[in-house]
Amino acid sequence: LRNETEIIERIWRALPTQAGGKAGGWLRLGVGDDAAVIRGFAGMKSGVGDCLLSTDAFLEGVHFLPEVHSPGDIGYKALARATSDLAAMGASPRFFLLGLAMPADRTGPWLDGFLKGVAQAAREFGMVLIGGDTSRFHSIVMNITVGGSADGNGVLTRAGAQPGDLIFVSGALGAAQLGLDLILHGPDGKSKTPRMPAGSQWKKLLRRHLRPKIQIGLGRWLAGQNPWARKIASAAIDTSDGLSADLNHICEASGVGARIWAARIPTVRIPKALRSRGVKLDSLELALHGGEDYQLLFAVPPKAASMLPQSIGGTRITEIGVIVPRSKALRKGSSRIELVGFDGTTVPLPSQGWDPFSTGKRARKKPNP
Amino acid sequence: LRNETEIIERIWRALPTQAGGKAGGWLRLGVGDDAAVIRGFAGMKSGVGDCLLSTDAFLEGVHFLPEVHSPGDIGYKALARATSDLAAMGASPRFFLLGLAMPADRTGPWLDGFLKGVAQAAREFGMVLIGGDTSRFHSIVMNITVGGSADGNGVLTRAGAQPGDLIFVSGALGAAQLGLDLILHGPDGKSKTPRMPAGSQWKKLLRRHLRPKIQIGLGRWLAGQNPWARKIASAAIDTSDGLSADLNHICEASGVGARIWAARIPTVRIPKALRSRGVKLDSLELALHGGEDYQLLFAVPPKAASMLPQSIGGTRITEIGVIVPRSKALRKGSSRIELVGFDGTTVPLPSQGWDPFSTGKRARKKPNP
Repeated sequence: LRNETEIIERIWRALPTQAGGKAGGWLRLGVGDDAAVIRGFAGMKSGVGDCLLSTDAFLEGVHFLPEVHSPGDIGYKALARATSDLAAMGASPRFFLLGLAMPADRTGPWLDGFLKGVAQAAREFGMVLIGGDTSRFHSIVMNITVGGSADGNGVLTRAGAQPGDLIFVSGALGAAQLGLDLILHGPDGKSKTPRMPAGSQWKKLLRRHLRPKIQIGLGRWLAGQNPWARKIASAAIDTSDGLSADLNHICEASGVGARIWAARIPTVRIPKALRSRGVKLDSLELALHGGEDYQLLFAVPPKAASMLPQSIGGTRITEIGVIVPRSKALRKGSSRIELVGFDGTTVPLPSQGWDPFSTGKRARKKPNP
Repeated sequence: LRNETEIIERIWRALPTQAGGKAGGWLRLGVGDDAAVIRGFAGMKSGVGDCLLSTDAFLEGVHFLPEVHSPGDIGYKALARATSDLAAMGASPRFFLLGLAMPADRTGPWLDGFLKGVAQAAREFGMVLIGGDTSRFHSIVMNITVGGSADGNGVLTRAGAQPGDLIFVSGALGAAQLGLDLILHGPDGKSKTPRMPAGSQWKKLLRRHLRPKIQIGLGRWLAGQNPWARKIASAAIDTSDGLSADLNHICEASGVGARIWAARIPTVRIPKALRSRGVKLDSLELALHGGEDYQLLFAVPPKAASMLPQSIGGTRITEIGVIVPRSKALRKGSSRIELVGFDGTTVPLPSQGWDPFSTGKRARKKPNP
C-alpha cells in the first residue's frame, strides 16, 4: 500500500507532464502546485493574462456526511475548497465545471439545496458555471474544476521561498478541525456517532468547518493587487492539509527548511465548555495538524515584510517563523520544519496533516477514516 | 425522480452561467455544448486562440466493471471519451486534469496498469497532465477535465445547423454497443454475468467498446484544417449517447428538425456467429440507439457538402439525412427526428440513447443499469 505522496509521484512518472516543442510555450506551470497555469486569458486589463486551473474531488463519507452536513453546506464547501487553490496562487476566480454523481433519490430537494449552496459560493467568489457532467451513482461524488485569471507575472507558487524570508499565516488555525471534532465526538467528547451539535453556542465554532472563508482578496493582494503593484510573497499555499503538511509543501517546492515558533502561531480559541470535557483538546495540536482552514500560508522577503500591515482586507496576518536553509542532515522523509516550543527547545515537526491513504492518527482529521 | 435533461436544466437555472459586464468577454461559449470556450490560449500560430474545456466522470459499476475491463482499457477509455468532446468541437487536445479516487488495494498493480492506459491515450492525442487530485474511496471513481485549443472562429458547436444542410456521420454506428452486449450477455446471448468473451474472433468486435477511436483529425478538418482553410460543418457532436439522442441534441441547439434514412445509416456488421443466437441483435437498432461510438455526427451546407471526399484522414463519412425546419406540431418532449424506413414509410424517432437517470430499456445501454 502506498501513501498519497507515493501515489502522486507514480502518476507523474507514468504520464506525460511536459508540453514539448515550440507549442509547449502555452504551459507556464504544470503539475505540482495548487493550480496549473496556462498562458492566455483574454479580457485582462493588461491584455492577455494567464488561466489557472485546479481540480478537486468531494466525496460522500470521505469529505462530507450527508446525514450530518446540510446539502447547502456541502454545496458551498465543495466550491469554496476548490477555489481556495486559486486564492493561494493570487488568481481571480472566474469559472468552474461541476461533475456530479448521485443516487436518484438525491435529485429532488437534496439537489436543490445543494445547488443553493453552490450558487451562494459562486456569487460570492464571482464565478460562473461553464460545464459539467451528471451521472447516477450509489453515492454522492463530485468533482469541481475551477478556473481563474492572473496577470502574467503575478502568480504565487509554492516554490520561491528563500532562507531569511519570514513566514506568515492569515486568520487563526485549527478552527475547522475543532468544528469537525465537535461533530464527530460531540461537546462532551464521548459521542460515537457524528451529529450536528444542538445549541446556538456552537454555531460560530462550526461555521469555519461548514462554510470556510477563503482568502481570495488576500491572495490577490500578495500577488500584486496592492499599493505598490508588486508581488509581495515569495511563496504561498492554502492550509488545506494542515500547517505542518502545507508548510512542508512550500519547503519541498522551494528546496528550503523552516523554523516556526509555537508561541506565535495564531490558534483557535477553545471555549470553556469544551476545555473541561473528557477528551482533551490542544489548540496548538489543532493549529499544527488540523486541516481545512483554507487560510493562506506565505513567505515574504524581510524587506517587503516590513511593509506588511497587521491585517489585509480585514484579515489578520501573523508572522510565525522564518525560512532557513535546507538541513544537510535531512534524510528522505524526515521533517524540514523545526518547531520552537513554549520552553524554547527546538524539535522537528513531522507532517501530520491529512493523507487520505494513511491510517492511524492522521486519518482522524476528516469525517470518515 | 427527474431525468437527466431535467436535472441539467435545474443545475443551469440554479447557478450563475453568464459572465457579466465588460469582463464577461472572456467567455465565448458556456454551458450547453460539448465543451466550454474561453477566449485566450497562447502559442497558437494565429496569435491567441481559444481554450476549450470539458469534464467527464467515469465511475465503477456505471461506466466500467473492474472485474471485466482491464485497468489499461479503463485508463485509455477514461481519457478517450473525455477528449472526444474536444474532437467534436474541432479543437486540438492539449491537457487534462485527473481526479482519481480508489480503494487502497487498487493503488498497486491496478493503478500502474490504469496509468499505462491513460499514458497511451495521452501520447496518442498529444496531451499532458497538468493537475489532479487523489482520494481514497470504496469505489473507483474518476473525473477527467480536458482542455484543448482552437482558432478563434474555428470552433464547431451543436447550434448552427440550417434546414437543407446535409447530415453526415463518420465510421459505422453500433459497434461499441455490440461489443458491450457481447460482454454483458455472452456470444450465446444467455449469460447473466458480465464476462470478457474468450476467443480471438471477438477481439476486433470488442475493440470499439474497449478502446474507442476518437475523431480528432476529422473534427479539426471540419473546423478549418482543410484545403480551403474554411469551416465546413455548420454543427457537430460526437455520438456518445447514441445517434437518436445526439442528433436530437443538434436539433434542439439549432432549433431545427432532421430526417434520416434507415437504408443510408452505416451500421455495424453483426458476425454470423452472433446472428444465429437466441437474443436477436438488430444492427439498425444498435446504430440508432447504441452509445459510446464516439464518431462525429455533423451537418454541412449543401454547397460545401459537394466538396466533401468520401473519407477524411482514413475515416469514411456517410450522408445519412437532411436538416428540416422544426415541425410546428412539435410537442414538448416529442421527437424532432423522422426516420424513413426501408419500406419508405416515415416514423418519428424518439431519443432512446443513454440517460443515466432513466430506467427500463434505455438503462440497458451501459454496463450496470
